[in-house]
Amino acid sequence: MCQLLGMNSAQPADMRFSFTGFAQRGGATDHHGDGFGIGFFEDKVCRLFIDNQPAASSPVADLIKHYPIKSKNVISHIRKATQGDALQLQNCHPFVRELCGRHWLFAHNGDLIDYAPVPSKRYQPIGETDSERAFCELMDAIINIEDGHGACPEALTFATIARVAERIAEHGVFNFLLSNGKFMVVHCSTNLYLLQRQWPFAEAQLIDADMRMDFSQTNTAEDRIAVVATQPLTSGENWRKLEAGELLLLKDGQIVQETRLFVSDAVKAKNAANLACV
Amino acid sequence: MCQLLGMNSAQPADMRFSFTGFAQRGGATDHHGDGFGIGFFEDKVCRLFIDNQPAASSPVADLIKHYPIKSKNVISHIRKATQGDALQLQNCHPFVRELCGRHWLFAHNGDLIDYAPVPSKRYQPIGETDSERAFCELMDAIINIEDGHGACPEALTFATIARVAERIAEHGVFNFLLSNGKFMVVHCSTNLYLLQRQWPFAEAQLIDADMRMDFSQTNTAEDRIAVVATQPLTSGENWRKLEAGELLLLKDGQIVQETRLFVSDAVKAKNAANLACV
Repeated sequence: MCQLLGMNSAQPADMRFSFTGFAQRGGATDHHGDGFGIGFFEDKVCRLFIDNQPAASSPVADLIKHYPIKSKNVISHIRKATQGDALQLQNCHPFVRELCGRHWLFAHNGDLIDYAPVPSKRYQPIGETDSERAFCELMDAIINIEDGHGACPEALTFATIARVAERIAEHGVFNFLLSNGKFMVVHCSTNLYLLQRQWPFAEAQLIDADMRMDFSQTNTAEDRIAVVATQPLTSGENWRKLEAGELLLLKDGQIVQETRLFVSDAVKAKNAANLACV
Repeated sequence: MCQLLGMNSAQPADMRFSFTGFAQRGGATDHHGDGFGIGFFEDKVCRLFIDNQPAASSPVADLIKHYPIKSKNVISHIRKATQGDALQLQNCHPFVRELCGRHWLFAHNGDLIDYAPVPSKRYQPIGETDSERAFCELMDAIINIEDGHGACPEALTFATIARVAERIAEHGVFNFLLSNGKFMVVHCSTNLYLLQRQWPFAEAQLIDADMRMDFSQTNTAEDRIAVVATQPLTSGENWRKLEAGELLLLKDGQIVQETRLFVSDAVKAKNAANLACV
């Protein structure tokens, strides 16, 4: 399986503290050592770093831990392979595509069973994961609501994602993060925690590494940051566990749209039984 | 303007030697300090590193110089901004898109004058460069010859690129490298040099850095590597200057298809006058 980390912020923010803790789970404090990826938006373009070495020891991850890249939308993923070849880079999340003249970035935690959509000519998967197939299906649905002038209206985009995600989630565990650099869509099937940091900022201690940060020293009243993760990254902060089916649109570090997707009792029972999903 | 570096190889090859020399031109031995990019194919997927710091000093470039990534197709680009904001990441080459279930990677040297194609819904530029517009036009033409089963026949792809590139090249200097991980297409408008390394391998000395390499120690009879660059990277090797209009399809380190695009005398004269194009 895998773990997810997402960040959506009002101001470009430095992700090194959170990523340092998260990367430890890629082979050090946890067993998600089959590659990792992290994508940073800078305006419309996403800078993606992926590697098939464990995040805890990869030289690429080491660069990320030390190079201050400031971004308003970041998605990261550490992988424990369950589908697709563990060492193939094409199966490393996040996946990226261009749509409406900007990058879109997607990462998924979970397994989708008997999920085999027919790919369109427009967006085809490169690797073999169920996750990339789901991403392509979402992209296909969104391009279809493009307004003819190269834009995708935000409310309609969120409604479209809700409709398609609800259908895909019938196939199994579908925790995902999706961003186009303007906003981030978060969907919880089983395990996702949300933390909102804002004024007055406080101190936090990483759970996976001996590192503390006093955010009141580095942030101002204008800063507001939402962090989403498969498991809480810090102690001393108020991580809220999202509900099954909860779909959020985060923008500028806060929830601007939300809905609850329908999850059948059969799917709930199947997902609850899927203990690998942590 | 900018400089290009491409590598096409029969076996996955290490690019650190060539990139070390090339990166020096990004702010040390030459003035191409407005960002850089390098994309490595691993099978169908391309791993792209871009940065808006000079290649000679960027921590991302430093990682590339020391982290052995083996690849059969690599494209790199160092930039001296002439179009688009110098520091915006979205204007850094190479550009990448998915087509027929694999990545395609593109980098361009030159300026295209009065070139404003209407972007399709399928491939839209993210940044403001003439280069990305040209890439999108090429991608649009190639997706149109997709055979209905997610494949693009190679000979037809080459012919399509030739037809579209000839038209785009009427707008100015259009040296470019394009790869889909299986092959690399090389087009020379004004400045591109081709080097073919094969058995028996010899020694080479970087022009831009104090570094020598004895390729006979690291390569075997099965290895065959084509390197393309805006200016020769090494002394003691046989770099051939390509002709204006020369379009090559490189595969497994050798030329497998070639043609010569028509270049009018007017365009030749205009390009020759464009002394910035080095």
